[in-house]
Amino acid sequence: MLPDRISSYISDHLEVFTAELARFLSIPSVSTLSEHAADVRKAAQWVLEQLEKCGFNGRIYPTERHPVVLARSPEVPGAPVLLVYGHYDVQPPDPLEEWQTPPFSPDIRDGYIYARGATDDKGQLLTYINAVQAVLAVAGKLPLNLIVLAEGEEEIGSPSLSKFLADHRHELRADAVAISDTSQFAPGVPAITYGLRGLCYLQMDVRGPRFDLHSGSFGGIIHNPAQVLADVLHKLKNPDGTVAIPGFYDNVLIPEQWEREEMSAAPTDLEALKNYLGVSELVGEPGYSVTERSSARPTLDINGLWGGFSGEGAKTIIPAKAGAKVSMRLVPNQVSGEIDRLFTRFVSQLCPPGVSVEFTGLHHAEPVLVKRNTAAMLAAERAIEIGFGKKPRFKREGGSIPVVNMIREHLEQENILLLGWGSPDDGPHSPNERFSLGDFHRGIRSAAALLFEMGK
Amino acid sequence: MLPDRISSYISDHLEVFTAELARFLSIPSVSTLSEHAADVRKAAQWVLEQLEKCGFNGRIYPTERHPVVLARSPEVPGAPVLLVYGHYDVQPPDPLEEWQTPPFSPDIRDGYIYARGATDDKGQLLTYINAVQAVLAVAGKLPLNLIVLAEGEEEIGSPSLSKFLADHRHELRADAVAISDTSQFAPGVPAITYGLRGLCYLQMDVRGPRFDLHSGSFGGIIHNPAQVLADVLHKLKNPDGTVAIPGFYDNVLIPEQWEREEMSAAPTDLEALKNYLGVSELVGEPGYSVTERSSARPTLDINGLWGGFSGEGAKTIIPAKAGAKVSMRLVPNQVSGEIDRLFTRFVSQLCPPGVSVEFTGLHHAEPVLVKRNTAAMLAAERAIEIGFGKKPRFKREGGSIPVVNMIREHLEQENILLLGWGSPDDGPHSPNERFSLGDFHRGIRSAAALLFEMGK
Repeated sequence: MLPDRISSYISDHLEVFTAELARFLSIPSVSTLSEHAADVRKAAQWVLEQLEKCGFNGRIYPTERHPVVLARSPEVPGAPVLLVYGHYDVQPPDPLEEWQTPPFSPDIRDGYIYARGATDDKGQLLTYINAVQAVLAVAGKLPLNLIVLAEGEEEIGSPSLSKFLADHRHELRADAVAISDTSQFAPGVPAITYGLRGLCYLQMDVRGPRFDLHSGSFGGIIHNPAQVLADVLHKLKNPDGTVAIPGFYDNVLIPEQWEREEMSAAPTDLEALKNYLGVSELVGEPGYSVTERSSARPTLDINGLWGGFSGEGAKTIIPAKAGAKVSMRLVPNQVSGEIDRLFTRFVSQLCPPGVSVEFTGLHHAEPVLVKRNTAAMLAAERAIEIGFGKKPRFKREGGSIPVVNMIREHLEQENILLLGWGSPDDGPHSPNERFSLGDFHRGIRSAAALLFEMGK
Repeated sequence: MLPDRISSYISDHLEVFTAELARFLSIPSVSTLSEHAADVRKAAQWVLEQLEKCGFNGRIYPTERHPVVLARSPEVPGAPVLLVYGHYDVQPPDPLEEWQTPPFSPDIRDGYIYARGATDDKGQLLTYINAVQAVLAVAGKLPLNLIVLAEGEEEIGSPSLSKFLADHRHELRADAVAISDTSQFAPGVPAITYGLRGLCYLQMDVRGPRFDLHSGSFGGIIHNPAQVLADVLHKLKNPDGTVAIPGFYDNVLIPEQWEREEMSAAPTDLEALKNYLGVSELVGEPGYSVTERSSARPTLDINGLWGGFSGEGAKTIIPAKAGAKVSMRLVPNQVSGEIDRLFTRFVSQLCPPGVSVEFTGLHHAEPVLVKRNTAAMLAAERAIEIGFGKKPRFKREGGSIPVVNMIREHLEQENILLLGWGSPDDGPHSPNERFSLGDFHRGIRSAAALLFEMGK
C-alpha cells in the first residue's frame, strides 16, 4: 500500500528530490582512484547528513580504505526491520572526451539526469531516503524500523565490507535486505533480480627484455611481450567464443528447463538493443539465448590492454612489457578463487621461456541465486506494482554485487531483495550515464510502498 | 691515410668535440611529436651554424614538416665530391621513467655520453663535422669537395626527402655518399653495412560498440574489440614465429650460400647478447642463425597496443575500441606497398561482423643491398682500418634507412657507404641511449681518413 497523501507528496516534491540528487552526483566519489579518497569521504558525509535530517541515528565508520555509513531510524517497537544497502562510490568517468556534459556536473535534459553514478548507485540509493522524507513529512513516523547501510567500495569489490558486516552483525539484524543496484528488465518493464553473476578480475603483466628495443636490430630474435600477450589473450577463448581455460565450465550450473523457457520468452527487443549498443549483430555462446548469455552463462572479457608506444606516429620498438586486465563473469556454482587459480595456471603455461608473467587479483565476487517464493519477495512484488503500475518480472542480471554474498554469509540473511529502478540503457560504467526522472519518481514510490508492505 | 698532425689534433680536441655533442644532444628534436617542431628547427639551425663556421656555404630548406640542411664546402677544383648524409631528429624518449638521467640532459659516465640521439644519429653525424674542423685547423683546406645533407624526418620515415632529392639532384651530384647511421658489428668490431631491411609500419584501429559498456550487463553478447585485436595479432604469426600473412614470403630473396656462411661465422657472442637484452633465451625462425634472423629475414613486431582501462584498479568495461601499431621489417625483394596491401587485406578478412578496422600507414621503406666491390667501398675499408685500427667486417643490418633507396632512385647513386661508428649495445630508440666516447673518437678519425682516402 501507499497512502494517497504520501503519493501526492512525492509527486509534488520531485523537483526538490532531483535537486538533492544533483548535489549528491556532483561529488566525484571515484573509489578506485586514490586521489579521490577525500571525495568518497565527502559523499559518505552527505548521505549521513540526509539521514540525520530524518531523525536517524548514525555514524561514519572508517575502514582501511573508504568509510561505511550506518544509520538507524527512530525505533518503532514491535515493527519489522528492513535493512537497505546502497553504495555512494562510482566508477571512473573516463573516457572523458565522450561525455556530452561533464560527468560530475549533473545535467538534466529530455527527462533524464546525466552524471556518473546517476543510476549506479547514487540515484537508486537516494530513492529510499526520499521515500523516508515523504513518509515522515506526511505521517510523522515510519511504519517499520529501517537501517541504512551505505558503502564507498562497491566499485572496487567491497574489500572492507566483509569484516564490517561480521563486526556489526548484531546491529544489522533485519527481516529482509533491500538493494537497488540493478535495473528493470527493459525500459518500462520493472523487475526483481534473483540472480547475479560473480566476478574474477585479474591484471596480467608480461615482461620480456629489460628495456624497449629497436625493432630493426632485434626483431626476429626475441619474444615480443606484446605478441605473447596477444597470443595468450587469443588462447583464452575458443573459436566459438566460449572460454578455453581448462576446467572453467566444470561447476557451471545449467538453469532448470522452466527457467530457460522463462528467459527465452523474455520480451527482449534485439533490434533496439543492437541499436543502443551500435553493433550490427549480437554474438555469443551457441545454444543459448541473448538473455541467457548475458546473465546465466559465464563469460570472459578483456577490460583493458596496453604495451609499447601508443602516441602519435611511429616508434619502432619491441616493448619491454605489455599487460591486460581480464575479467570473468561467473555463474553458480563457480567459485572465484578456483577460477583465479585455473586462469593463472593456464596463462603461466602459455607464456614461453624468456618471458615472465605476473598476476594481480583486482576483484573477486561469488555468483548468487536467491529464493523467489518468500514473504519478503511477495511484499516487494506488491510494492513495485504500486510504484510502477505493473507487476515486475523476475530476472537474473549479468553484473556482480559482492555485498549480496557477504550478507548471506555474515548476516545469515536469505531475504535479499534486488529491486532495480534503473533502465538497462542507463549506461552504468559508460560515458553519459543517466537515470530517467520518471524512473526516479517510480523508484521513490516503490521504496515508500515497500516500507508499508514490509511494515505490515 | 690520416696525417699524424690531424690525428693528434683530433686526440687533443676530444673534450671540445664532446662538449659540442652535448649541446647538440640537449635539443629535444623529436620529429614525430608535433609539439617539438620548434626544437627540430633549432637542431637544423645548430647543424648549419657548425658548418658555416667551417666556411661551408649552406642554407635551411623548409619542407611540409621539418627542414633539410644542405651545405657545401669551399670548392676544391678537380677533386672528388663526397656527399655526407645524416639526421638531426630523434625518436621519442619515453618511457621517461626508465632513464637514469634525463634524455635531453646529456650525462657523461663510464666513458659514454647518455642522451636520446647520442648514437642515432647526432653523435655519428657530428663526427664528420669534427673531422672537417680538424682537417681545416691543421691543413687549412679539405682534400675533396664535401656536401653535407642533414634531415629532420628520418625517424618518421623521411616523408619530405624524396621530393627534396629530386628537386636538388643537380646540386647533390657526388662520387659517393657516406652515411653513418648504422653500427659496428659488435663492440670493437667495426663494420661496413651493405644491406638494410625495409619497413612497413601500420596502425590498426578496431571499433565495436559505440561506447564502453558494462562488462557484466553486456559480456557474452557482443564482440569485444580488444579480444578481436588480440585474435588478429595472434593470427599474424605462425606457431614457429614466422609471419602468417598469405604471400608475405613470396618475393623474399634467400641469401647466397657464401653470404649465409659468412653470417653464420660472424663472431656473435650470444651469451653477451642475452645478457644485454635481459632475456633467458633467443628465439626465431627455424633454420636461420641469429645474425640472419636479425638482418636477412623479414619479421613482424607489435610496437604498441592499447584499449580500454589501463589505470589503477579494476574497471569492468567492454572497451568500445582498441588498437595496435604493427611493423614489418622487409628484405630484398619485398616491396613495402605490396606488403601493406597483403597485411590490410588479411586483417580485414580476420575482423568479424559487428567490428570495424581502420588502417593508417605510418612508415614505409624499401630493403637495400649495395655492391661491396667498388672503389668507394675500398676507400671506406681503408679509412675504417685507420680510424679503428682494424679491418671492418661486412654486414647487413636489421633496421631501415629510407634515404638509401631515395638516393639510389633520385641521385642515381650506387656508391653508398654505410659506415657505423656506434656499437650494437648503444640502445638507439631505447631508454638510456648512449655513444661511447672511444667510438666517437674512432669515428672522427675514420671520417677524417675517409676525406683523404676519397680525395685521392
